[in-house]
Amino acid sequence: MITLTSDFGLKDPYVAQMKGVFLSINPKATLVDLTHSVEKYNIRHGAFMLASAAPFFPKGTVHLAVVDPGVGTERRAIVIQTKQAFFVGPDNGVLMLSAQNQGIKHIYQITNPKFILSQVSNTFHGRDIFAPVAAYLDNGVTPSAFGPELTDAVEPKFVIVKKKANYFVGEILHIDGFGNIVSNITTHEASFAKTVKVKLSNQKHQLLFCKTYGQAKLNQAIALFGSHGFLEIALNQGNAAENFSVKVGDAIEIEFKV
Amino acid sequence: MITLTSDFGLKDPYVAQMKGVFLSINPKATLVDLTHSVEKYNIRHGAFMLASAAPFFPKGTVHLAVVDPGVGTERRAIVIQTKQAFFVGPDNGVLMLSAQNQGIKHIYQITNPKFILSQVSNTFHGRDIFAPVAAYLDNGVTPSAFGPELTDAVEPKFVIVKKKANYFVGEILHIDGFGNIVSNITTHEASFAKTVKVKLSNQKHQLLFCKTYGQAKLNQAIALFGSHGFLEIALNQGNAAENFSVKVGDAIEIEFKV
Amino acid sequence: MITLTSDFGLKDPYVAQMKGVFLSINPKATLVDLTHSVEKYNIRHGAFMLASAAPFFPKGTVHLAVVDPGVGTERRAIVIQTKQAFFVGPDNGVLMLSAQNQGIKHIYQITNPKFILSQVSNTFHGRDIFAPVAAYLDNGVTPSAFGPELTDAVEPKFVIVKKKANYFVGEILHIDGFGNIVSNITTHEASFAKTVKVKLSNQKHQLLFCKTYGQAKLNQAIALFGSHGFLEIALNQGNAAENFSVKVGDAIEIEFKV
Repeated sequence: MITLTSDFGLKDPYVAQMKGVFLSINPKATLVDLTHSVEKYNIRHGAFMLASAAPFFPKGTVHLAVVDPGVGTERRAIVIQTKQAFFVGPDNGVLMLSAQNQGIKHIYQITNPKFILSQVSNTFHGRDIFAPVAAYLDNGVTPSAFGPELTDAVEPKFVIVKKKANYFVGEILHIDGFGNIVSNITTHEASFAKTVKVKLSNQKHQLLFCKTYGQAKLNQAIALFGSHGFLEIALNQGNAAENFSVKVGDAIEIEFKV
Repeated sequence: MITLTSDFGLKDPYVAQMKGVFLSINPKATLVDLTHSVEKYNIRHGAFMLASAAPFFPKGTVHLAVVDPGVGTERRAIVIQTKQAFFVGPDNGVLMLSAQNQGIKHIYQITNPKFILSQVSNTFHGRDIFAPVAAYLDNGVTPSAFGPELTDAVEPKFVIVKKKANYFVGEILHIDGFGNIVSNITTHEASFAKTVKVKLSNQKHQLLFCKTYGQAKLNQAIALFGSHGFLEIALNQGNAAENFSVKVGDAIEIEFKV
Repeated sequence: MITLTSDFGLKDPYVAQMKGVFLSINPKATLVDLTHSVEKYNIRHGAFMLASAAPFFPKGTVHLAVVDPGVGTERRAIVIQTKQAFFVGPDNGVLMLSAQNQGIKHIYQITNPKFILSQVSNTFHGRDIFAPVAAYLDNGVTPSAFGPELTDAVEPKFVIVKKKANYFVGEILHIDGFGNIVSNITTHEASFAKTVKVKLSNQKHQLLFCKTYGQAKLNQAIALFGSHGFLEIALNQGNAAENFSVKVGDAIEIEFKV
């Protein structure tokens, strides 16, 4: 089983070209699109997407992720073997958040020409290098066959959540299709909170702290812990990100009140 | 075989998380995205989408549909067994149009914790309840195993088409990607019509009644019976919905003229 | 294995209806979406998309492409057998670029009612004619079973690249999701070029000629040979099409300078 994550969108034949390469090597591969709507060139956003979905896939899944502004330059291509799965992609951090969550066993640089397409373009290693490597991994090729072991893979840098009593400072990881604002704040200490004071775009708002969207009135803003396991700001059946004028990467401050 | 219908869009990892759950339970499942572009929170729109595509799938298919503004509240989770297929989702009407078209045999409330994820979030029952239930159904678990039988499932409310001789009043079910306006008017009594008078956005228009788009001039507006089996208003190679400024749920009145 | 190319987009149940038809005839079919974001009604754009991805699929793949403004009119339905694969769709040129690249063996008109749905709509032959024919081809039905052989299939008309020494005139085939401008200019004579002079939207620009995007500064415009094998104009991590205000079908002139 192979999952695909990228910033390619779906208007181009790029994803299909990768699938053609997979299926030429392994016609019985099960291919699952994780998402191709990572913000273009945004490695940390890709790392969040992959980390959010990878835990739900079976043991042994091969996760391919291509958010690759450095394609064709000196950046390395890697395979990561974790306790749960395999990750294939550029060595720029996009794989590391998921891999660290699962427990890294080995990281290998992809150098063996036997497992990549005979003609490698300068601009699309997703198709020419990562897709065939993922297909061979799915076929059972041992990870160390792809090249030498590495210990210095690039890690994605997220804002570290700062905490002071009931007061947290983090960043916005993701705006979902409903406009829900997903932060990187995760805490179980707030379970008795009734309201929160949240600072977004330099403005403070007093919000109810709920368990689910439908507990609020239509278009009312609330805070809750969402399905990613992180604190979210949402509007019931409305678009919180538009309402509060925020984007991925913005700061978020939150204070829980009992 | 499992189909997926939702209002999640494709920019998030939500659909992939559901697929991971399916494939963890049943690694050989055939998964087909029906559409994830249901208008957000619009249960009737989801019901139309599912009803339009479900008839083309083989006997025994499991159809999962998640348009679920009431997630985490008191709304029930259900499985419907019809003469043709199975339907899984929230008890808010999104499943019932399709199920009624196929002939309902049994409806069961999902209550058995054995068939849902051990940790159920308050905001994403698509992943935590409906996906595992659909996978177990696809694996052959008998529908009555999921919980007690129900007889009072929620039905979606569509405007009932009012008819007076050749004059019909209905509603707009769907605007497709080409801008074609799909009504809920279906009649075989209009087969001799040459033109129609249609009222949209409170304005009347005299249109040709055609068999297909290419019978009209470029950008000419026409009426026809489309592939959903319903009356459509279309522009040949143009966008009728933009041209007539209509949206899903608007009224449509039509008079057939021989 | 069956690939699907269309201008349907993903907000409708049309692609899913076709997949239901495939899977009803052949429940074990492997289905791959090539793209459904062909510019609406743009046959040449569909021909380019298909030609870009088809070469990466295994021998014997069935490629279905539906960009079909003439559906329900006199335009014919065809199957093309090449040295590598099968192509199914309308006889309007959308299949021919790919088929010619692979070497055409036979072209057949689809006339045999045995292999199409019993009820054929006037507006959706993708579902009612092309999908079942593709499924039967994938099942091993011999191409000549679908109808009589043809020799006069419609070919798509692209601007023929005009060349004078290092000076080329072509057209824009595609704008990809990153905003990269893909021309139909392909040459190996430019391998020593250091810069290019390019004319777009009637304005001339002097650009670096690079091997990959990351060789340029952020948002710097460059020319390069992209992964489609054609000359592209790109901005490193920016959107070249917006920057130069061009669209699919526009002219492009380029002069290579050593």
